[in-house]
Amino acid sequence: ARELWVRRWGEGSRADAMATATSVMRVQQLLLARFDTIAGRHGLTFARYECLVLLAFSREGRLSMSRIGERLMVHPTSATNIVQRLVAQGFVERVPNPQDRRGAFAVVTDAGRAAMEAVTADLEAADFGLGMLGPEQHDALFSLLREVRVGARDFTP
Amino acid sequence: ARELWVRRWGEGSRADAMATATSVMRVQQLLLARFDTIAGRHGLTFARYECLVLLAFSREGRLSMSRIGERLMVHPTSATNIVQRLVAQGFVERVPNPQDRRGAFAVVTDAGRAAMEAVTADLEAADFGLGMLGPEQHDALFSLLREVRVGARDFTP
Repeated sequence: ARELWVRRWGEGSRADAMATATSVMRVQQLLLARFDTIAGRHGLTFARYECLVLLAFSREGRLSMSRIGERLMVHPTSATNIVQRLVAQGFVERVPNPQDRRGAFAVVTDAGRAAMEAVTADLEAADFGLGMLGPEQHDALFSLLREVRVGARDFTP
Repeated sequence: ARELWVRRWGEGSRADAMATATSVMRVQQLLLARFDTIAGRHGLTFARYECLVLLAFSREGRLSMSRIGERLMVHPTSATNIVQRLVAQGFVERVPNPQDRRGAFAVVTDAGRAAMEAVTADLEAADFGLGMLGPEQHDALFSLLREVRVGARDFTP
């Protein structure tokens, strides 16, 4: 589809922006497919793995459901679904939130930490799907993406 | 979460690859959120817009359901859901596939083409969310992402 877009709108002044944006989307799909395969070896998806990482490195090892959705940038329904599956797997426990009777905290278990570490090791061994890039290319790509994030106000100064 | 990963695994040899991979994911989320907002002005999501683009520029203006899922790189269930919503909106019509009695073709309607063109115009006006990059930066980012796609065998030579 992407090649068709370029062919169709290639003469427009924003063809470069479109090509770059579609490349970002495509590379994300490729990386996500790869990461899902790797996480799948340990009974996880990449989304569930990300949730475990988030919990494991939160200051108190636990987060409220709303904070999880916020930090993972997913819909609250998706966050709930992710945590439910992790609970069913024994990787996360729900504990009551004393400040909010309707809310709950998610806490990562030892089994959850172990699964997370195993996926991380495999992702590292796979160079996070980016083994084709050399160190200078990593730096260049990271800097360019950082510029996009700054421009989109992804960072609070 | 990403900053935490870097802090946690920063000493590891693959920290650069992880930082780059998470940046790709994050920039995709930012662009998708922006594109969904823009498509939403015309009653669409970016996923449904992509489907309309795919159909509009297919050789015969129509594609089978399985081909749509394949080209959009989404699960067949998602492809079905996307097309169902577009049909409900009058942007797509389902026609029988003479070669496959169980299958169907999706065909873009005139209203679907008009909606697609309107979203495209707005995306162009918004520089596809990448107005913060200059022409050289676009080229550099596109080339680096292309290298990732080639390395991940996204192109058939």
